[in-house]
Amino acid sequence: MTSQTDNGIYARDLDRSGANYHPLTPLTYLERSASVYPEKTAVIHGHARFTYAQFYKRCRRLASALSRRGIGRGDTVSVMASNVPALLEAHYGVPMVGAVLNALNYRLDAGNIAFILGHAQTKLLITDREFSDTIAAALARMDEPPVVIDIDDPIFEGGKLLGEKDYEALLLEGSSDDPHQGPSDEWQAISLCYTSGTTGNPKGVVYHHRGAHLNAIGQILAFGLNQRSVYLWTLPMFHCNGWTYTWAVTAAAGTHVCLRHVDPAVVFPMIKEHGVTHMCGAPIVLNMLVHAPAEQQVSFQHTVEVATGGAAPPSKIISAMEDLGFRVTHLYGLTESYGPAALCAWQSDWNDLDVEARTAMMARQGVAYHTLQELMVADGQSMQPVPSDGSTMGELMLCGNTVMKGYLKNPGATDEAFRGGWFHTGDLAVRHPDGYVEIKDRAKDVIISGGENVSSLEVEELLYKHPAIMEAAVVARPDDYWGETVCAFVTLKPDAQEIDSVEIITWCREKIAGFKIPRTIVFGPLPKTSTGKIQKYVLRKTATEL
Amino acid sequence: MTSQTDNGIYARDLDRSGANYHPLTPLTYLERSASVYPEKTAVIHGHARFTYAQFYKRCRRLASALSRRGIGRGDTVSVMASNVPALLEAHYGVPMVGAVLNALNYRLDAGNIAFILGHAQTKLLITDREFSDTIAAALARMDEPPVVIDIDDPIFEGGKLLGEKDYEALLLEGSSDDPHQGPSDEWQAISLCYTSGTTGNPKGVVYHHRGAHLNAIGQILAFGLNQRSVYLWTLPMFHCNGWTYTWAVTAAAGTHVCLRHVDPAVVFPMIKEHGVTHMCGAPIVLNMLVHAPAEQQVSFQHTVEVATGGAAPPSKIISAMEDLGFRVTHLYGLTESYGPAALCAWQSDWNDLDVEARTAMMARQGVAYHTLQELMVADGQSMQPVPSDGSTMGELMLCGNTVMKGYLKNPGATDEAFRGGWFHTGDLAVRHPDGYVEIKDRAKDVIISGGENVSSLEVEELLYKHPAIMEAAVVARPDDYWGETVCAFVTLKPDAQEIDSVEIITWCREKIAGFKIPRTIVFGPLPKTSTGKIQKYVLRKTATEL
Repeated sequence: MTSQTDNGIYARDLDRSGANYHPLTPLTYLERSASVYPEKTAVIHGHARFTYAQFYKRCRRLASALSRRGIGRGDTVSVMASNVPALLEAHYGVPMVGAVLNALNYRLDAGNIAFILGHAQTKLLITDREFSDTIAAALARMDEPPVVIDIDDPIFEGGKLLGEKDYEALLLEGSSDDPHQGPSDEWQAISLCYTSGTTGNPKGVVYHHRGAHLNAIGQILAFGLNQRSVYLWTLPMFHCNGWTYTWAVTAAAGTHVCLRHVDPAVVFPMIKEHGVTHMCGAPIVLNMLVHAPAEQQVSFQHTVEVATGGAAPPSKIISAMEDLGFRVTHLYGLTESYGPAALCAWQSDWNDLDVEARTAMMARQGVAYHTLQELMVADGQSMQPVPSDGSTMGELMLCGNTVMKGYLKNPGATDEAFRGGWFHTGDLAVRHPDGYVEIKDRAKDVIISGGENVSSLEVEELLYKHPAIMEAAVVARPDDYWGETVCAFVTLKPDAQEIDSVEIITWCREKIAGFKIPRTIVFGPLPKTSTGKIQKYVLRKTATEL
Repeated sequence: MTSQTDNGIYARDLDRSGANYHPLTPLTYLERSASVYPEKTAVIHGHARFTYAQFYKRCRRLASALSRRGIGRGDTVSVMASNVPALLEAHYGVPMVGAVLNALNYRLDAGNIAFILGHAQTKLLITDREFSDTIAAALARMDEPPVVIDIDDPIFEGGKLLGEKDYEALLLEGSSDDPHQGPSDEWQAISLCYTSGTTGNPKGVVYHHRGAHLNAIGQILAFGLNQRSVYLWTLPMFHCNGWTYTWAVTAAAGTHVCLRHVDPAVVFPMIKEHGVTHMCGAPIVLNMLVHAPAEQQVSFQHTVEVATGGAAPPSKIISAMEDLGFRVTHLYGLTESYGPAALCAWQSDWNDLDVEARTAMMARQGVAYHTLQELMVADGQSMQPVPSDGSTMGELMLCGNTVMKGYLKNPGATDEAFRGGWFHTGDLAVRHPDGYVEIKDRAKDVIISGGENVSSLEVEELLYKHPAIMEAAVVARPDDYWGETVCAFVTLKPDAQEIDSVEIITWCREKIAGFKIPRTIVFGPLPKTSTGKIQKYVLRKTATEL
C-alpha cells in the first residue's frame, strides 16, 4: 500500500495520512447510520424497539464493558444465541475493542461447543438461556472455561442462567461515552466462524475488517438494500455472521427485525406487520413457507425479496414462492467467502421465458459479486479453466478480498484451500456459454455408475418435480456390478398420497438417462446438519448398509 | 496491511495471498459488467452503440496500443475532449497499463493547458477537433510537446486534425487480446485532475485506484444506480472524472449516454428517447433546464434523478425542477474529494414539510457518504469541532479513503491542505442539530460590513427568490466607512420586465437584516470559470473599481 514502487512523479510526496487513509471496517456503517438516522428504528425484537442512536449506544456500552474487563485486540468473545439483539450488538461491540466475535452454531452438541471454545481460546462467552443445557455440558468439559454472561430474554421461557450476570447488567458496567477506535489495520481479524463440517473437528474461518466492510457492500448491491429496507432475520446470525447482513442492513440504515425461530405461523404475520422487504434463508426455509398450512400463509400486498443459498432452490419452490408474493434471488457462497459471494444476476431477456425455463436459469449459481475479484471453474490440479460450454465439469474456485484470512491455527488446511492462489470450494461446476456458473455436485457427491458420472443434484432436481415429493437427497450405493448405483432418499409431502418406489422409478423414465434413475428409493425424514444441510454422509452410510 | 502487530492467535499464519487479497480498483467493474452483461448497451453516442463486450474490447485495445508505445506505470496520458466515448474509454484503457489519466478542462485557455501538459509531464495527448485552436496554441508554447492523437468524431463539424493519427487508428495499433493487469498496489495513482483555481497556476489533484473504486460505490449508494440506470452525461467527464460516475455507472452496469454540449433543446428529447433515469450537473445546468423555452421542455412520464453540487441549489430551482419531473439530490464535494463525498440524505419526515421548508432542508450539504470516513465542522486552527447549533461557523473538513493522495509535485500545498490529519475544504459551515452540515460561505467570500459578517450565500439565496432574477452573485465592495459593503451582480430572466436597483433593494427590506442588504447592484451577464462557477474574483475586482 505504499507508493515506493511507483515510477516517477507519482511516487513522491503522495503518501498516506490521517486525512486520506482509514482502514476499511463495517464499524463505520453503524456510526454513520446513528449519525444520519438517529431516530430511525434500527432493531425490532418482540415489543422492543431500538433506534439507531440507542443501538449505537448499546454497542458502545458493550465495547466499554469488555474493555474494562481487559478484553482487547486479538481476544475471542463467543456468543451462543438465536437472532436476538445481543448477538447483533456483539457484531459491533466486540470488534470495537479489537476483539474477535465468534458466533456459535446453536445446533451443535456440547462436545463440539467445548472444542470450539477451547480452540478459539474464548475469554468471554455470552449465552442465551435457551441453550443452557448444551452450554452447561460444554463448560463442564473444559479445564479453563471462559467468563460466562447470560442473555436473559423475556421472550424466551425456560432454560437456566449459568453465568456471573446477565447481558443487560454487563452493559451497565460500561459507558457509551468511552472513546472507541476502529481497527488500526483493515487486515485485523473481526470474526471467527466454525464450519459445520460433516466429519472431524470444525475449522475456524477467520474474517477481517476489510472483507466484512466489502462483503456488506456486496450484499447491498446484490439485494438492493436501502434505508427503506426492513430485513427479517430468518437466517441465523451465526451463519457467516448472517451472510454479513448483520453489517449490510446497518450500512443501508434499514431495520433489523429479530426472530428467534423460523416458524411460518410467525413469519407470515411479521412480514405483514413490519412491512418486511427482505429476508434470507436456505432452501429449507423456503420449503417451510411454501408447505405451511394455508391458514398460516397470511397474504401481504408488497413483494418480499428472498435470497436463498446453500443449495440451489428447486424450480418448483421458486415458482411456489412467487405465487405467495416473494421474489427469489439465488446466492452462492461458503463460510470461507463470508457467505454469499456470487449471485444469479437477473437478465432482462429472462422475462420472456416460461416458468420452467426461467427457474432453470435461476437455479444456477451465477456470477461473481461486485466485491469478489473473480470466480473460475477449472481443473483442480492444472488450474486450467474449463470451456464455457455448459458441460465440462471443473472445480469452482474463488479469489478476492472477501475470501477468508484463513483457518485459525491450521496453516496446512489454509494452504491446501488456497493452493494455486485460488480458494478451492470443493464444488464441481460447469460454466455456461453466458458465463454463468452452475454447480453440478460437491466433489464427493458425484456418483459413478458403470463408468458414467451421475450428478446427484440433477437427479434431486428431477425428484423435486414429482408432485408427492417434498425433499429428496441422492447418494451412491456400492454395487458389485456397476461400481455404484443411484440411491434416493425422499420425504413425501404431508398431504401426499402414499406412493411406492416403482411408481417413482417409472415416473423418472423418459425424464432422465437410464443410468441416472435411482435403483433404490428410501422413504422417511432426512438427517440434517445443524445448519439445515442434509447429511449425505449419514445417507451414504445407510445406503452402504442397505 | 500485514498482521505483524496483531496479538496472539490471529497474528499467525493468516497472511495475504492471491486467493484473499486483491488491490481495489475500478477496473474490475468493467471486467465484471462485460462478463455479466456482455450484450447490454454500455455506451450511446449519437447513432453509435457499444455493448459492454465492445466497450471492454475497445478499452483493452487502447491499453494495448498505449503499452506497445511504451506507455506504462506512472506515465501521464492527457485527454482534451467533451463527453465522447474516447474520454470514457480512457478512464479504463489508461489505468489498465498503470498510467495516469489527466482529463483536461476544455474551457481553459492555451496558457493553462500548456502549463498543465508540462507540469503533468504528459507523454501522449488525445484531443478532439473541437478544441484544436486552443491545443494548437498550447502545443506551440511547449519545448517538448507530447505525442498527439486526434479524436475525429463525425458528430462534430469543424476544427482541425493536429496529431499523427486519429483515435480509431490508435486503437488499431493494439489488440483486445493482449493481457492486462490491475494495479499491483491500490494506492497507485489512477488520475490527475487540475483544480480550476481562480488565481495562480492550477494544482494537480492525484487520485488512487482504492479511492476511485470506493467513491464509485459511494455514488451508487447515494444515487441508487443499478443495471436499469440510464445516465445522461450532462456533467463534464473532466470534472473530477465526472464525479467518478465514469466508473460508477459502469460498476452498476448502467448505460452511459454521451453528450457533447448541454443544450436544453437536446437534453429534453434525449431524456425521453433513451429513458434517462439519472444525470448530474452544477446548479447552472438545472437553471438552463428550468429557464428553457416551453417548447423545448419535452415532457416525459418517469421521474429523472438529478444530482447537483458545486453550489447549493436555490430552493426556487429545486421546486421548478420538481415541476418538470426531476427529483433533485444535493451533493457536496471538491476535486480533492473525488467529487461528491457528502449528500443531503432524505429524511422521511421531510415529506410532510411545505415546499419552502423542504427545499431549505435540501439546500444543505448534509452528511458524509458511506465511503467518506467523516466530515467535521471545526475551528481551522484549534481543530475543535463547533457545536451542532446551526449557527456557530467553522471550517468544513473531510477525512477518509476518498480524499486525494495529494497535490502533484506540491508537498507544501498538500501538507497545508492536510494539516491536523483532515482535508481543509476552505468552506465555512455550520452544523445543524440534526447533524447536517450547511455551508455558509467560502472562507474568502465572507463580507465584513461594519464588523458584522455577511454570508454572500445567504444574500444570493434571497436574490434568487426575486421573480425577475435568474442569477445572482454577491461580493464585498471596499468602503471607507463600513470597511466593506454588500455588492450584488445580477442577471435578469430573459422574459423579465426591466427593474432597477432601488426596486430590488426595497424588495430585500424586511426579508433580511439591514446590514446584509446590497448597497450596490450591477446588472448584466456574470463572468464564469471554465467549470461554470461564477468568477467572484473578477466581480470583486469590478466592485473595487466601481
